Amino acid sequence: METEFDVIVIGAGPAGEVCAGRLGEQGLSVAVVENRLVGGECSFFGCMPSKALLRPAEALAEARRIPGAAEAVTGELDVEAVLRRRDEVVHDLDDSGQVPWLEARRVTVVRGRGRLVGELAVDVGGRRLSARRAVVIATGSVAALPPIPGLADALPWTNEQATTSKRVPERLLVLGGGVVGVELGQAWATLGSRVSIVEAMPRVLAREEEFASDLVHRSLVERGIDVRVGVPAVAVARNAGGEVVLTLGSGDELVGDEILVGVGRRPATRGLGLEAVGLEDGKAIAVDETMRALDTPWLFAVGDVNGRALLTHMAKYQARVAAEQILGRDAAVDPLADGALSPRVVFTDPQVAAVGHTLASARAAGIDAVAVGHDTSGVAGGSFYGRLAPGMSRLVIDDDRRVLVGATFTGADVAEFLHAATIAVVGEVPLERLWHAVPSFPTRSEVWLRMLEAYDAPSRDARAARARLAV
Amino acid sequence: METEFDVIVIGAGPAGEVCAGRLGEQGLSVAVVENRLVGGECSFFGCMPSKALLRPAEALAEARRIPGAAEAVTGELDVEAVLRRRDEVVHDLDDSGQVPWLEARRVTVVRGRGRLVGELAVDVGGRRLSARRAVVIATGSVAALPPIPGLADALPWTNEQATTSKRVPERLLVLGGGVVGVELGQAWATLGSRVSIVEAMPRVLAREEEFASDLVHRSLVERGIDVRVGVPAVAVARNAGGEVVLTLGSGDELVGDEILVGVGRRPATRGLGLEAVGLEDGKAIAVDETMRALDTPWLFAVGDVNGRALLTHMAKYQARVAAEQILGRDAAVDPLADGALSPRVVFTDPQVAAVGHTLASARAAGIDAVAVGHDTSGVAGGSFYGRLAPGMSRLVIDDDRRVLVGATFTGADVAEFLHAATIAVVGEVPLERLWHAVPSFPTRSEVWLRMLEAYDAPSRDARAARARLAV
Repeated sequence: METEFDVIVIGAGPAGEVCAGRLGEQGLSVAVVENRLVGGECSFFGCMPSKALLRPAEALAEARRIPGAAEAVTGELDVEAVLRRRDEVVHDLDDSGQVPWLEARRVTVVRGRGRLVGELAVDVGGRRLSARRAVVIATGSVAALPPIPGLADALPWTNEQATTSKRVPERLLVLGGGVVGVELGQAWATLGSRVSIVEAMPRVLAREEEFASDLVHRSLVERGIDVRVGVPAVAVARNAGGEVVLTLGSGDELVGDEILVGVGRRPATRGLGLEAVGLEDGKAIAVDETMRALDTPWLFAVGDVNGRALLTHMAKYQARVAAEQILGRDAAVDPLADGALSPRVVFTDPQVAAVGHTLASARAAGIDAVAVGHDTSGVAGGSFYGRLAPGMSRLVIDDDRRVLVGATFTGADVAEFLHAATIAVVGEVPLERLWHAVPSFPTRSEVWLRMLEAYDAPSRDARAARARLAV
Repeated sequence: METEFDVIVIGAGPAGEVCAGRLGEQGLSVAVVENRLVGGECSFFGCMPSKALLRPAEALAEARRIPGAAEAVTGELDVEAVLRRRDEVVHDLDDSGQVPWLEARRVTVVRGRGRLVGELAVDVGGRRLSARRAVVIATGSVAALPPIPGLADALPWTNEQATTSKRVPERLLVLGGGVVGVELGQAWATLGSRVSIVEAMPRVLAREEEFASDLVHRSLVERGIDVRVGVPAVAVARNAGGEVVLTLGSGDELVGDEILVGVGRRPATRGLGLEAVGLEDGKAIAVDETMRALDTPWLFAVGDVNGRALLTHMAKYQARVAAEQILGRDAAVDPLADGALSPRVVFTDPQVAAVGHTLASARAAGIDAVAVGHDTSGVAGGSFYGRLAPGMSRLVIDDDRRVLVGATFTGADVAEFLHAATIAVVGEVPLERLWHAVPSFPTRSEVWLRMLEAYDAPSRDARAARARLAV
């Protein structure tokens, strides 16, 4: 086999695939090194199976909320069918379906663990590969295990087991009320588990708008999930009977059959040979806006491994930027579109879809921000959606520049609302222009109209009046 | 009762309500004259009841396409419950729920038929009202009856009967394969009617992209609807047994229990006194981009009655423009956002959501346009949606200016995809910026990514290659 390539990509998750694929399409010789599944965490143990677990119950819940359709739903969710469909979505953890896409772009897939051994040099199981132009690190991240006494010995689930389990645990404890915790907590609850979610922060989805946290919290509780916020987990033990006992800072003890840990991720850089090129083992690889590692212009890092935004779509975006750079073209991630401001969707029911700033983060960033809001379903189009999930939406507006700097939508099936806001925020479309972008009647996108009215209408020149209209 | 107002609005449909409401909010004295239902055609006989009839079957069809959910749907659509919910949505044709919104804005509702009797003068049943600033005509449109022999005598349904019928006709003939025809044809088919749709043009939804017509046509046929295109209706008769016999140009005869006419609208200006102010009775009122009637600066016409765009949301948009003008502020409809380019959604299954140009209309307008397309569900997020309705999407790009001039999405539940395209088209967001507006994974909005790639990627400088990638 060839050992010299234009570019070597380590890691064949979404970021690695996109970067390698684009470079291959452009005629470069590319190797992608993967020691596990081509397609990565997201395809097999992340977004894809979690949505596969959530969607059937979501579709059924919506049908049940609609008179005329509800009467036809006389049976129950078929848990076995959901799990089978989930297995189909993850191709039974077989990545052979992913490889042809790379092969069609003449990318060489090298199986094994890649390790940097010097400038432009990579070792794969004793074989030395060298790159002419660049090495791209796209190894992603792994679930972080917090230092809670007894946790590691209790054989906790991470996202990996929680997305692929073929068995529904009778009782599931969930550590962490972030995206992983609330999505998988809801998923297993709909499949029959008794679920408890424990979050040390004062609310679930702590980085999102408070009203979004509240709506998701309430909805989880309505599904019978025991949600505890503002209380730390202090000890975990698996007892002789195989049960997991979780002790909280309050002294309460929760008992489950499994415990899922969803309290953050760490960059997958251990044993990657970073120290051979002057970087620190186990740490995120700091990059500039071209995705180049600082002071190491031949080395790129894209996706979770650089710690900027732990989101598949941002990983792919960064991968496109890196590919353009390697091809000698001008490209950089945009500060309006990257990092904490990245668009993001939580696929609970109600869903949360957000981009850019929350009101709090905008103000913390020194923006003269005001917020306007409206019930997501408080428009004509809402009449046709399930009335138990009205949801709430908010725009965050830079009052000086009169552009949108953030938006959050919550409600049934609002994920596809988001791209409009992403275009408005990233495109910095002036509010005056947004008035001419007319939402169609009777779509629920008319919530835009209500929010623009709240900002602009009678109180046009009266910021105080606007503040009263804010959510 | 007062007889002098700042503004008199004739017609209390969506356009009239929005215009009167905004003027009232701003402290003007406003009368709105309505001889029928406050809320108008759209609320009672148009968009609202038609979506109420369509949505339950749509939600159920989607649940049936999703493994795990499908197994729970063991019953059938409850037709009576659908009709009852439809009745709720139209408030049993009682408009008292609409009035408080106007009253809260201190708008006087005058019941009766308004007729212009001179400059700033309106007669309502013999009572003369006068306006200090402006008169706004917002009387909408009525279903047009084509001059087909026998049609009028056959007591045809218009949208009015077709949206409010409490009985499901066994066999329903539909004249016209435009939006009214395909939406109501599908609705009654899902409720149990045997439906035939006859369209003289070569395809249904003739103004939309051809692939959209094809997908909707195919889906109607799959639901058992008999769709005839490219053939005119030449005669209609209701026979002694009460059946309607429709004779086609081909000589074929179709027999039904009712016949729905959905072949266009005419402006509701008959008997409105237009001749008293130098305009022509029964014609659309031509307006400039401020919504002022030509050569008649005190007279405004908003909504269907001016013939620009027969869409509720555009009527409301025009109403906002007129209100701003009457308040002495600068406002005008935007040529990128009005008329035939207006955003529009067809709520069939698959849905069609479009804004701006089709490829054909862009080229006809002299734009150096290229089209790129992709399966709407051909992205990761599509895995979670019903696989029987993949759909297709297309962007129409002005290749000189590198901005979007049109977009069409088809597929299950794509109505909310549209607003992103509307913002991009109306905001003239450069394609280069659109690359930084990253669609979230795994939403179906990632179809944007695929389409931008098709336009830009390997074939960046090769227009010919792009043409090959076009739908």
